[in-house]
Amino acid sequence: MTDAPNAPFAQPGSHDELELGDRLTPRFDAHGLVTAVVVDADDGAVLMLAHMNAEALAKTIETGVAHYWSRSRAKLWIKGETSGNLQRVAEIRVDCDQDAVLLKVRVDGHGASCHRGYRSCFYRAVPIGARAATATLAFAEPAPMFDPDAVYGSNAHGHGHSHDAAGHGTDGHSHD
Amino acid sequence: MTDAPNAPFAQPGSHDELELGDRLTPRFDAHGLVTAVVVDADDGAVLMLAHMNAEALAKTIETGVAHYWSRSRAKLWIKGETSGNLQRVAEIRVDCDQDAVLLKVRVDGHGASCHRGYRSCFYRAVPIGARAATATLAFAEPAPMFDPDAVYGSNAHGHGHSHDAAGHGTDGHSHD
Repeated sequence: MTDAPNAPFAQPGSHDELELGDRLTPRFDAHGLVTAVVVDADDGAVLMLAHMNAEALAKTIETGVAHYWSRSRAKLWIKGETSGNLQRVAEIRVDCDQDAVLLKVRVDGHGASCHRGYRSCFYRAVPIGARAATATLAFAEPAPMFDPDAVYGSNAHGHGHSHDAAGHGTDGHSHD
Repeated sequence: MTDAPNAPFAQPGSHDELELGDRLTPRFDAHGLVTAVVVDADDGAVLMLAHMNAEALAKTIETGVAHYWSRSRAKLWIKGETSGNLQRVAEIRVDCDQDAVLLKVRVDGHGASCHRGYRSCFYRAVPIGARAATATLAFAEPAPMFDPDAVYGSNAHGHGHSHDAAGHGTDGHSHD
């Protein structure tokens, strides 16, 4: 890596080069991050959202194991490093203006990607046509696939911003 | 709507209520937004990422038609209002800590969700195992499904931040 702002990636070129070219020139945001959408490579289920800095994206591409940036811990985060639920990357896509990536993965271990033990972070459904203000969520997964207390320790939950949710990097929470 | 910060939604409660409860209490970020992942309801293909403010999320829930917040235009954005590619929402999920939603949609019109005319914004693949710095992207969709110049006008591209990409709300670009 060098000190160039996008290193090891090249800087984005013109609008057309960015969107229609064949060069990977990610557009990291003000925090140096792109968004990653993570889906199951076999059935396409959306598992989680997370964020990647340049190092996490480069390591994911080069190793085929999903690396993210933990915003709360301010460190590189290999998903599954605690739980064993590593994500093996079968395919990577980049979006039109290169500020988001899509990972198609196969998950080791329990096969779960959410810190709450569910397969997907998106385990609750919002009813359509309901009044938004009073919508009641329905659980859409039958049960968690592992016991978070057993994997992360019984004090790992309920402490707000002291950890990242393993299931996403969209806020300040995560295990793993 | 009231002046309450999360209106029309209730404020998030405790960590456990947020993650394991049955109440929709979205956690909007400092810009008042949550991230939306949009997939095809029939085959699960990831189509785009976008952002929603409280009004966009409420209207999406109540009408079953996808509404987003256009960051560049700073206005409510009904996806497909220009191109006709409206997104009919078959299912909505919320993630563990309620700062992201998943929409499963069926797309009207051309059936495309990217402002470049592709079905998905994620139309390019990144090779795994390559050196990240020199990765060559491979086009993963055979061709665009509509001609953006014909739909949006021939001057609509290449003007950087003057418009939003229809395909995502992850930067400052969008049509539609």
